[in-house]
Amino acid sequence: MFFKQKNPYRLMTPGPVPLHPDIEKILGEPMIHHRTPEFEQCLRRVTEKLKETFATEQSVFMHSSTGTGAMESALVNTLSPQDEVICIVSGKFGQRWVEISNAFNLKVHTLSVPWGEAVTPQEVEKKLNDHPKTKAILIQACETSTATVHPIREIASVIKAHDETIFIVDAITAVGAMMLEMDDWGLDVVIGGSQKAFMLPAGLSFIALSQKAWGFYEKSKLPKYYWDLKPEEKSLLKGETHFSAIVPLVRALDVSLKFLSGKNKMETLSRIQSLAQATRSAAVHLHLQVFSKAPSPSVTALTVPDGVDSQKLRDHIEKEYNLTLIGGQDQLKGKILRIGHLGYITDDDMFALFDIIYHALKDFSHASPQLTNMNRENLDAANEELKKYL
Amino acid sequence: MFFKQKNPYRLMTPGPVPLHPDIEKILGEPMIHHRTPEFEQCLRRVTEKLKETFATEQSVFMHSSTGTGAMESALVNTLSPQDEVICIVSGKFGQRWVEISNAFNLKVHTLSVPWGEAVTPQEVEKKLNDHPKTKAILIQACETSTATVHPIREIASVIKAHDETIFIVDAITAVGAMMLEMDDWGLDVVIGGSQKAFMLPAGLSFIALSQKAWGFYEKSKLPKYYWDLKPEEKSLLKGETHFSAIVPLVRALDVSLKFLSGKNKMETLSRIQSLAQATRSAAVHLHLQVFSKAPSPSVTALTVPDGVDSQKLRDHIEKEYNLTLIGGQDQLKGKILRIGHLGYITDDDMFALFDIIYHALKDFSHASPQLTNMNRENLDAANEELKKYL
Repeated sequence: MFFKQKNPYRLMTPGPVPLHPDIEKILGEPMIHHRTPEFEQCLRRVTEKLKETFATEQSVFMHSSTGTGAMESALVNTLSPQDEVICIVSGKFGQRWVEISNAFNLKVHTLSVPWGEAVTPQEVEKKLNDHPKTKAILIQACETSTATVHPIREIASVIKAHDETIFIVDAITAVGAMMLEMDDWGLDVVIGGSQKAFMLPAGLSFIALSQKAWGFYEKSKLPKYYWDLKPEEKSLLKGETHFSAIVPLVRALDVSLKFLSGKNKMETLSRIQSLAQATRSAAVHLHLQVFSKAPSPSVTALTVPDGVDSQKLRDHIEKEYNLTLIGGQDQLKGKILRIGHLGYITDDDMFALFDIIYHALKDFSHASPQLTNMNRENLDAANEELKKYL
Repeated sequence: MFFKQKNPYRLMTPGPVPLHPDIEKILGEPMIHHRTPEFEQCLRRVTEKLKETFATEQSVFMHSSTGTGAMESALVNTLSPQDEVICIVSGKFGQRWVEISNAFNLKVHTLSVPWGEAVTPQEVEKKLNDHPKTKAILIQACETSTATVHPIREIASVIKAHDETIFIVDAITAVGAMMLEMDDWGLDVVIGGSQKAFMLPAGLSFIALSQKAWGFYEKSKLPKYYWDLKPEEKSLLKGETHFSAIVPLVRALDVSLKFLSGKNKMETLSRIQSLAQATRSAAVHLHLQVFSKAPSPSVTALTVPDGVDSQKLRDHIEKEYNLTLIGGQDQLKGKILRIGHLGYITDDDMFALFDIIYHALKDFSHASPQLTNMNRENLDAANEELKKYL
């Protein structure tokens, strides 16, 4: 009971993420209008810094929406009804590409990959050769549901040779969290979301188009208004958003982008990488195995010991230890525990995380023979691993 | 200079609006996850209270978007390509209905009304008789660009008899700000936005469908995914949003809806009405005429004296007096000054408003013969009017 009382609330999911105190402060500031010199300056700073985060010379646009809105935007801004697309499906968000594509009357070729595995550039190339009329290849840079990264750079170099095909990358749990060089790698559409590496609440999504993708825009016939990027481009030149802006989020973005641009960017990526490596190395000492064969820096999926239901475990952790983690979705429900590495996570949070997981697993030790002999030494070993990386 | 220094920043536009201190506080609170019991309870409370604000038994859904997103949602959830619609155009937002309808390949019949005037139910009836195949009539309850209200209840009773026609009401600057009884009046789709009477930043939009409109949903063929209300309905029953939620805005909505539901609702509407009446009555003493022939309680448009450019006036007021008002758009640019009556506006703010306008007009007295003789007595008379209503 004493232990529980001293636990402050902690959030370690792959979005939403814990907020930096400076960001909380700015979110609570009095409202200003979005058509003021002050906001215009803020927007211009944000626009410049977003380019650094996306590693592009192109404009990065903001939609007032969650990440799914930007996925829809990517399709309606570049494609026409009956266009063929290849969807890489290795989890729930790949599935979402299929659903959106179907909703917009695109002709979908699915490239299915076992959950937890990355697609190979060769598989993509073969699929593209099988369907040479493909207009777009849709992928996640990080498939959040399995905590797996796909080899985006290598796939891009396969697609680059195809003038009539663009590469659309849902980088919602990737941009700002790992190396992702839009221009250098030749990515055509890149999407982000505010509640991930941008360390904000949900509500803003980001999208940038390559010159090749802008060429597709001109020919695209899917209906669009709210997502239409052409008027957004015109407004951005004037230092405005086309529609109303979510003022507190944009102002907070101005703060959080300081961590994701200039010389701070590499430091932030490296910190996230360290949190992921620390988590993977420590977890095995508590009988938690890394689920993904190509684990992401932004989120780690851990297979729980046989006999333990990961959904019940996460509920227990939330209720008893005041820490929100997330379980598995769809076919992984009950099987994995997912831990986010984005946002304002301190070293203390990391030690608390493993302390809590240790105690929670002890609470479940009746459920799994693996856990019956787990003791303080396991936690010590986990902590030793954490210290190596933090 | 002394006067200017003591001016705190004030925002009196028809959205965004000044925030209540309790709302600022909750916006700055640490993040929680949107799939937690705490958020679920919050969402269930919000869902119930929204019904009271909209005066409906139907579910009121939230999109993470600005109001324009909900306008698009209204169309894609109820209509099919080539459907005929009548757009009532009496300002910039009526125009937006035309633009969205065109973008989605609807067949638009425009019913144009001079800016600043309300459409009559007879005009709508005639237009509907001219185009009996019309599937939907699109209107603003309050046309924000001219600060004018349309007779929604009377128009609804004209449309009600037409089984094959629904009435879609953009009530973004109306719901929560004036009487608008969705069920009683027979409105089929009603839309709201968080940065208006809901006293929040932009970022959430609201939409409710009548049973008749749900019938249209079943037959609707416009492509939809992000705006699709059917999955939202399923999620809402489980106490969830279908996509990620903008957690701070939804939690803040839980607070602001207290002012817009239960016994507080009428009090809030009456306060807004008082602010509008006070503004209209006081303004004439400073040579500002009410522009609209059917003025709205949520926003007042004032015609500035001949020779004064209202855009320059508002810029001057913002720069020198730290108060953001808004000018006219499109054909009204330079001609009107618009003052919002929504959000956390105190009596002090109202007196400061007129004090500032008085001084700012004095600064412009060289521009207009009407203003040369304006003196302290004019301000006193304006203040007397304010006192009658506040």
